[in-house]
Parts: sequence; C-alpha cells; structure tokens
Amino acid sequence: MTARAENVKATVAAFAARLDGRDWDGFAALLHPDVIYEVPQTRERIRGRDRYVTFNREYPGAWRIDPVLILGDERDGSLLFRWTVGADGEVAEDQLAIAYFEVDDGLITKITDFWPGPYEPPPGREHLTERW
Amino acid sequence: MTARAENVKATVAAFAARLDGRDWDGFAALLHPDVIYEVPQTRERIRGRDRYVTFNREYPGAWRIDPVLILGDERDGSLLFRWTVGADGEVAEDQLAIAYFEVDDGLITKITDFWPGPYEPPPGREHLTERW
Repeated sequence: MTARAENVKATVAAFAARLDGRDWDGFAALLHPDVIYEVPQTRERIRGRDRYVTFNREYPGAWRIDPVLILGDERDGSLLFRWTVGADGEVAEDQLAIAYFEVDDGLITKITDFWPGPYEPPPGREHLTERW
Repeated sequence: MTARAENVKATVAAFAARLDGRDWDGFAALLHPDVIYEVPQTRERIRGRDRYVTFNREYPGAWRIDPVLILGDERDGSLLFRWTVGADGEVAEDQLAIAYFEVDDGLITKITDFWPGPYEPPPGREHLTERW
C-alpha cells in the first residue's frame, strides 16, 4: 500500500469520524471548495463545500455513522458504513450504506453516496436462497 | 500496494469478467466451496459455490456487468459496477450496484451484493440540491 493510498484511507476515516461527531469545521477542512456530492438513488446533486456542509448540519435525527470497511487506492476510496438513527437509546432505522470518494491532494473532490433501501426479492429463486 | 492486495483486486476483476462472459467454469474456480452470498436489500443468503453458480446461471435477462471501480486490500475487495439488462440493443435497465468480497488464499469466501433501487428524495433539502 503506497503512502498516497494510506492518505486516501485516512481521509475517508476522518470524514466518517468528523461527520459522526458533528465536527463541522474539521469536516469542512476535508472538502475541496468545489466538492460535488451525488446520490444516485434520488438523482440529487449538491455543488460546493458550503452547501454540502449545510446539508449535513441540517440532516434531521440523532443519526450515527459507524464504519464497517474502508478501502482506498491512490485516488479513490470507499466507505461501507452502518447508519443508525433513533432517540432515547431506541434504534428506529439501521441500514448499511456505501460512499465512494475521489481525493485530490488530500481534499475530497467528489462523493457518491449510495443509500440502498430494502425491498422484497423477485420470485423464482427460493430453491437457492434463505432469508434473514 | 502489496502483492496480496493486487491479488484481491485481480480476483475481483476476474469475478466481473467471467460473470459478464458466462464463463461458469472459470467463475466457479474463483469461489470457495463454502462461499456465502448475501443481498442486504432482500435479506437473501445463498450458501455454497454450487448454488451460487446456479443462481447466476439462472438469472434471467441479457444482463451485462461493466466495472466502474475496483478497490482492494489484503483481504477485502469492492466492485462498483454498472449493471444493464436489455434486448436487441435496447437498454431496459441501467443501474449502479456494489459488491464487497472477502478473499482468502485467492478464493472468494463471502460476497455482499448491494442492489440499490431508485426512489424520490425526502422533502426539505431542495434549497441545496439539484436533480438529474
């Protein structure tokens, strides 16, 4: 693993920790001023660091980000994370989500954020699968 | 990047290429006999190489797997890919999906396959977002 790949992984880890900790100044310091944030599921795009920080500050609920796996190479990183939201110790939602990052010179320039929702499987493969 | 991380990435690349090419013998050769396949969206699990190869062989449609990004370290890999299905040159579906892999001694032991579907965004963030 090159030093640059290690740096990308460290940037992704800091992204998760500072977002979870609502450290907005530290969070903003990881982002390129012209960062692009995209959500493929909803076809939403946010342009620029200020709007993207605001988006996260305003995001409702007592949500938590818990990293499961971070991967990275010289330019790209990925974060598989458990996202939970709840109140008073009750977990109302709990799902796995995935973010991909492009990092240039230590700053995040692009985030692609996948929020996969649950659905029922199509019929025809019950002979091979079990459910949990 | 260590040789072992390169091997994990090569295994993920071969997984995508052999699946796309319906090279079922070559595909099976990448899998541990006790491989576990999980789909978090549908809470489906398939146990074992034979069932998992059958699942893919039987999967309906003229689907294609087109890798967008492969990441890997010593044990884990991820594949971001474009999945299309259609007939007669028409693309009926086109989505990004993500698979994570655990690799042990060159064989895939675990696959977690995320198939995020589209949905409408929640209200309240239109002042920050654009749509595509």
